[in-house]
Amino acid sequence: MGESAGNASLGKKAFKRSRSHFADRITADGRDGWPVEAGRYRLVVSRACPWASRALISRRLLGLEGALSLAVADPVQDDRSWRFTLDPDGRDPVLGIRFLGEAYDAREKDYPGGVSVPAVVDVPSGRLVTNDYQQITLDLATEWTALHREGAPDLYPERLRGEIDEVVADVYEDVNNGVYRAGFATGQEEYEEACAGVFRRLEQLAGRLADRRYLVGDTITEADIRLFTTLVRFDAVYHGHFKCNRWKLAENQVLWAYARDLYQTPGFGDTVDFDHIKRHYYQVHTGINPTAIVPLGPDLAGWLTPHHRERLGGRPFGEGTAPGPVPEDERVPAHGRP
Amino acid sequence: MGESAGNASLGKKAFKRSRSHFADRITADGRDGWPVEAGRYRLVVSRACPWASRALISRRLLGLEGALSLAVADPVQDDRSWRFTLDPDGRDPVLGIRFLGEAYDAREKDYPGGVSVPAVVDVPSGRLVTNDYQQITLDLATEWTALHREGAPDLYPERLRGEIDEVVADVYEDVNNGVYRAGFATGQEEYEEACAGVFRRLEQLAGRLADRRYLVGDTITEADIRLFTTLVRFDAVYHGHFKCNRWKLAENQVLWAYARDLYQTPGFGDTVDFDHIKRHYYQVHTGINPTAIVPLGPDLAGWLTPHHRERLGGRPFGEGTAPGPVPEDERVPAHGRP
Repeated sequence: MGESAGNASLGKKAFKRSRSHFADRITADGRDGWPVEAGRYRLVVSRACPWASRALISRRLLGLEGALSLAVADPVQDDRSWRFTLDPDGRDPVLGIRFLGEAYDAREKDYPGGVSVPAVVDVPSGRLVTNDYQQITLDLATEWTALHREGAPDLYPERLRGEIDEVVADVYEDVNNGVYRAGFATGQEEYEEACAGVFRRLEQLAGRLADRRYLVGDTITEADIRLFTTLVRFDAVYHGHFKCNRWKLAENQVLWAYARDLYQTPGFGDTVDFDHIKRHYYQVHTGINPTAIVPLGPDLAGWLTPHHRERLGGRPFGEGTAPGPVPEDERVPAHGRP
Repeated sequence: MGESAGNASLGKKAFKRSRSHFADRITADGRDGWPVEAGRYRLVVSRACPWASRALISRRLLGLEGALSLAVADPVQDDRSWRFTLDPDGRDPVLGIRFLGEAYDAREKDYPGGVSVPAVVDVPSGRLVTNDYQQITLDLATEWTALHREGAPDLYPERLRGEIDEVVADVYEDVNNGVYRAGFATGQEEYEEACAGVFRRLEQLAGRLADRRYLVGDTITEADIRLFTTLVRFDAVYHGHFKCNRWKLAENQVLWAYARDLYQTPGFGDTVDFDHIKRHYYQVHTGINPTAIVPLGPDLAGWLTPHHRERLGGRPFGEGTAPGPVPEDERVPAHGRP
């Protein structure tokens, strides 16, 4: 999402995350006017953003790289928000636009809300279809099935949806969004309440994960994707920048092993750019980091160390298989990796 | 010292620490006009300040509590700098002043420099004698000997002074002051140079301390005191607030055990107030923490865990003994301790 530029507001009261305004769904039956179709849509993300990174991971696990193309925005927004300054001439080569906001404008002129990622854009018309970060991955898992690779895992298995929904609701409130409420708090009490909530929930999740490899069932699901995108950012940005510093992830044996297990699973770590993550948070949020200096730490080497979680059993991809290698033009540069 | 209020300046270029302006020495022979004398002087500190904390520790180890009385300033300065707002009516009960600056004024009217701790004040005249943080502890160790307790250790043994001076020079440059250069850097390059220097030196010190219990010789010396006062603040403030975040102290096996060993030694940990430390850094430096929010972490429980450093041998107090209990009226409140 565009935390600081867009749909998150920092008022006098507690930090509030806005709802996505554009909530059309791309479905197999096309009931909202947007049928699933190979090559028609473009997924716009920032690799810095945890909400967009969910879609990056789902797309990789499901093998949708060929069907749904990818635009990666500069991790540092300017006053026009997410921009394509990483591309030649600062223009997305497929959409031909310089700012993601142009696709928002094409959809609704003078839309007063913020510009956020993840966003899915209809390539022929250049119009934004959806920025609904809560729904996009669920639809990739359940509506885009005709375009999934052979061996794609079921990330939202029908019989587990109730349990997944329950887990992700808590993870959203206390973890995914909890770190933002702590970091963007404008008062001590508001911060303490949010920060305590983050660690209370993480302790509870560590308990749950002590003897089971994944959050729900014995395979990777949507729930793991949503927890991972916060955990992978924890020591790099939330611990210091957002003051969620009761302990580092690396100090929690269970969660650190769980996060490393996922990081080392094809489709997770290969989407993560720590350089983008750090530069985004530390350079964009000058309200909490006025110097915009980006810390040298943490040491990332630990992400590649053995996690020993195979001992807990589990079948990462269920009846399916691991995704293949990352397409050449989507590889994260060396300085973004451990 | 009075980092933000006083004798540290944040200009366009790199952070510079000013030299102490008042460098009179209190000596056994009284050659500067200030002879060592029981009950005559008052040591003014902030428990937040690493430079002042050196003197707090030396005074305890040497058993000078009865001879040299103690004033503890509020950890949060105001625009008149260090103040006695922790005392009844906001006034130091012995000096009768509200601000440490009044003792500076009594010494030199309209002194244009900053007000810093540690400061030693002559009680009869109310005049500042010295704020020379580099010299005060050395004089406590070598000039105040007639007033040392029985069994006081030799913190600056003659035959080891060359080695101690060498070690503390590096520790000062890269660690004690290095964390400030990192934290107060105004540019990325300046920060990176300082932060890299901090960790380079810490790695080197960890190597030195891997198989020896103390920095120089086999007993506690001035060198250990000076390294400790930075290490004890590392995870609480330097790691996040000053962006020295390559790793936490708690992640470095050798230094973390070394710091715990000292913390658990009478005279060290019993002078430390983590509440004062955190509130000072996070509330005073609004240039790097505009919200002035004080983090809940880190979890301090680890400071009390076994360190197993006795295995390395060493004799903490040499031929001497451990100091007795902390005087009742100098005990750190529970909320400042692990």
